[in-house]
Amino acid sequence: MSYKLSDKYRNLKPSAVREILKATNEPGMIAFAGGSPAVEAFPCEEVRKLSAEILAEDPVSALVYGVSEGYEPLRQQVSQWLKRRENVGGDNDSVIITAGGTQVMDIATRILASEGDTIICEEPSFIGSLNCFRSHGCKLAGVPIDDDGMNIAALKKVVESNPGAKFIYTIPNFQNPGGTTLSLKKRREMYEIARENNLVIVEDNPYGNLRVEGSDVPSIKSMDTDGIVLYAGSFSKILAPGIRVAYAVVPKPMAGAFTIGKQVSDVHTGVLNQMIVSRWFDEYDVDEHIENIKKIYLRKRNLMCDALDKYCGERLKYVKPQGGLFIWARLTEKIDMLEYVGKLIERRVAVVPGTAFMTDDTAPCAYIRLNFSTPSDEDIVKGVKIMGEILNEYEDRK
Amino acid sequence: MSYKLSDKYRNLKPSAVREILKATNEPGMIAFAGGSPAVEAFPCEEVRKLSAEILAEDPVSALVYGVSEGYEPLRQQVSQWLKRRENVGGDNDSVIITAGGTQVMDIATRILASEGDTIICEEPSFIGSLNCFRSHGCKLAGVPIDDDGMNIAALKKVVESNPGAKFIYTIPNFQNPGGTTLSLKKRREMYEIARENNLVIVEDNPYGNLRVEGSDVPSIKSMDTDGIVLYAGSFSKILAPGIRVAYAVVPKPMAGAFTIGKQVSDVHTGVLNQMIVSRWFDEYDVDEHIENIKKIYLRKRNLMCDALDKYCGERLKYVKPQGGLFIWARLTEKIDMLEYVGKLIERRVAVVPGTAFMTDDTAPCAYIRLNFSTPSDEDIVKGVKIMGEILNEYEDRK
Repeated sequence: MSYKLSDKYRNLKPSAVREILKATNEPGMIAFAGGSPAVEAFPCEEVRKLSAEILAEDPVSALVYGVSEGYEPLRQQVSQWLKRRENVGGDNDSVIITAGGTQVMDIATRILASEGDTIICEEPSFIGSLNCFRSHGCKLAGVPIDDDGMNIAALKKVVESNPGAKFIYTIPNFQNPGGTTLSLKKRREMYEIARENNLVIVEDNPYGNLRVEGSDVPSIKSMDTDGIVLYAGSFSKILAPGIRVAYAVVPKPMAGAFTIGKQVSDVHTGVLNQMIVSRWFDEYDVDEHIENIKKIYLRKRNLMCDALDKYCGERLKYVKPQGGLFIWARLTEKIDMLEYVGKLIERRVAVVPGTAFMTDDTAPCAYIRLNFSTPSDEDIVKGVKIMGEILNEYEDRK
Repeated sequence: MSYKLSDKYRNLKPSAVREILKATNEPGMIAFAGGSPAVEAFPCEEVRKLSAEILAEDPVSALVYGVSEGYEPLRQQVSQWLKRRENVGGDNDSVIITAGGTQVMDIATRILASEGDTIICEEPSFIGSLNCFRSHGCKLAGVPIDDDGMNIAALKKVVESNPGAKFIYTIPNFQNPGGTTLSLKKRREMYEIARENNLVIVEDNPYGNLRVEGSDVPSIKSMDTDGIVLYAGSFSKILAPGIRVAYAVVPKPMAGAFTIGKQVSDVHTGVLNQMIVSRWFDEYDVDEHIENIKKIYLRKRNLMCDALDKYCGERLKYVKPQGGLFIWARLTEKIDMLEYVGKLIERRVAVVPGTAFMTDDTAPCAYIRLNFSTPSDEDIVKGVKIMGEILNEYEDRK
C-alpha cells in the first residue's frame, strides 16, 4: 500500500469493548462485558405488529428517502414527550433524529471541534464517545469522578488549563462506566462553569429512563437558558439498540450545522426504523413500558450486587448504581487488574478492563466494568461466583 | 450564543438539493429535482413479507446490537454477488456494510484525509459527496468531464498541480449529475495515474446496476491489483433508499481504519434493515429483480428524452444517459440559468440548478439536472412541456 491513512486515524485502535464483544459471542462465554440492554425487555411483539402495519398501510413512505432532520411525526412526538417527562427542549431547540446516540457525539464533534482541539470529559467515560472524539483528532482532558459525579474542583482546574476547549462531555445519569449520577448541585455548578467559559455542554443521557431507585435529578438541559447544552437521548435502551434510533435536542443556532452534519454522515436515519418508533408512541404507552422494564433492571442489578457482596465481598468495591446497566468495581487488593481479567476470560467470564475507559489507557487501573443487563440471571450468579473463586486463588497464594 | 462553530462548519451551506427536495414535497410540484429511485420499482410486498418473517422467527437478532462491519451473512452474500456480477472484491478486500452510500464517502474522507487536504473529483459531481468532503475541511480540485467521463488530460494536470491530494472521487457509471459513463480506456488510464501518484480511487457506483442500454464497462475496482481502490455500492437504487443499506469494498490494509470510522459514526447499521436485505438474497432472485426494474427506468428515460426533444429541442442539449436516474441538460441560448430555474419553480416544476454540482458554486453555469425516476409518467411529459413553454417565452421576447 503506497497511500497513508490520515494523521487522526493512523494511531487509532479499535474499541476494546467492541473487540471484547466479539469474544463474548463465543459459545459459553458469560457476557459481563457487553452494554446491551436486557433482551427480555425488548418489545418484540409490538415491533412485529408495528412493522407489519407500516409495511401494509404505507410501505412507500417507509422506503423512500426521508429528510435529514428526521421523520416529522417522530420529531414532534419526541419533542412533546421530552418536554413533559424531563422538561427538556423548547422553542429555542430543535429535535433531530439520529442513527443511535453515538452519532450525536460524532456530529457534535464535527460542528464544534477541529483537529487538535480539546474536549473535557469525565474520567472514566464511555469508550465509544472517547474514541469518537479521538477519531476527529481531538485531545481529551479527563476530570475524575466522585460518587456523585464529576469532581467540580477538578473540572475548574481542567477548564483553566485548557482555555481553548470546545465542550464538556458528560453522562450525568448512571454514568458509563462509573455508574454514578451527577448531583443537582453539581449540575448547576457545571452549567455555570460552561456559561462563564464559553463552553458547550454535550449531555449524553442514554440511561436516564432506567432509574430503578431514588429520584430523578433534573437534566442540565432543563436549566439551559443560554442555549449552550446539546442533549442526546436514545431509544436503544428503552426499545432496542438494533433499531438505531436516537435523538438530539440542539439549540437552534447550532441546528443548521447539526443538520448538515447529519446530511453528510448518512443523509437520514432509516425511515422504517423511525416509523416503528413513531407508531410505538401512537399505539402504546411508552412511559408504562419503561416502568415495566425497570422491574427487570432492578432485579438484575440486585442479583449482581448481592452476588458480588456474597462472593467477592470487600475485595471488589463499587458504588451501587441507582439505574443504568453497569457496575464499576475496583480491586482493593494488590492484584494486577489485566491479569485478573485474563484469568476471567480463561474461565469464560468476559469483563471490560477499566483502562478502556481512561483518557490514557496505558496508565495503571484497578477497575473493571461489569454489565448486568446482558447476561441471564443464572449467568450473573455463575459469573460472579467465578470472579470470587479467582480472587480466592490470589488469597491462597499469599 | 457565545460558542463558535468549528472552522470547517462555519461556512458550510446545506445541500441545495436537499433544500429543494423539501420544496418538491409541496403539493402539486413536479419533482425533477429529486434523486429518488422510482417508487414503482420498490419491492414493497417482498420487504413486508421478509420483515414479518424476521420479526416472527428471530426478533432478538434483529433488535440487539450488531457488529460494526455489518451483519455477517449479508457481508458474505454481497461479497459473492459482487464477485460474480462485477468481478469486484477478493481475498485482499473486506466488504463492510454502511448506512447508505454517502457514509462510505464520509468514512473514506475520515480515514484518508485531514483538514486542508485536497480531493480530486469530477466537475460536476454529486453535491452530497462534495458537501461531505467540504464538511471535513477538504478542498476540491475539479476535473471537467467529456461525454465519456473525466477528461484524462485535465486529470493529469490537476494531479500535477495538487501533489498532496488524497484521493480521486469518481462516479464511473451514469454519473450524477452528468449522466456520462467513463470509458474502459479512461478507467485504465485513471487507475495508472492513481497508482503512479500514490492516490487512492474512491469509486462510487450507486447506479451501475441500472443500465438500460449498451454494455457494462468493467469497474475500476476489478482492475485493482494494487489495493488502491475503495469501492462503494448501494441497495438504495435497486431495493429502496429509505432502508439505508449500502456496502464498501475496502482493501484490507484500510479495513481496520474503515471499521473504526464506522464504529465512531453510528456503531453499526440497523440490524433489521440488514437482515431484510440478507433474506432478500435468500428468498428472491436479486438479478431478476434488477432486470425487471430496468424496464421501468428505460421507459421513464425514453419518456423524458422524447419530451425534451419535442418541447425543448436544440435549446436544451444533453447526452442521453445509458442508465441511472439523471439527465444533465445545457441551456444553449443566452438565458440566465438561475432565472430559468426560478420561473420553473413558479410554474411548479422543480429542477436542480447546475451550480449545485460545481466545486465553485458561484461561477456561471448553463446546466440543470433533471431526474426522470421520481416523477410519474404523466408529470414527466407535463413538466417538460412547461420547460418548453418557458423557453418559448424567452424566444418571444427576442
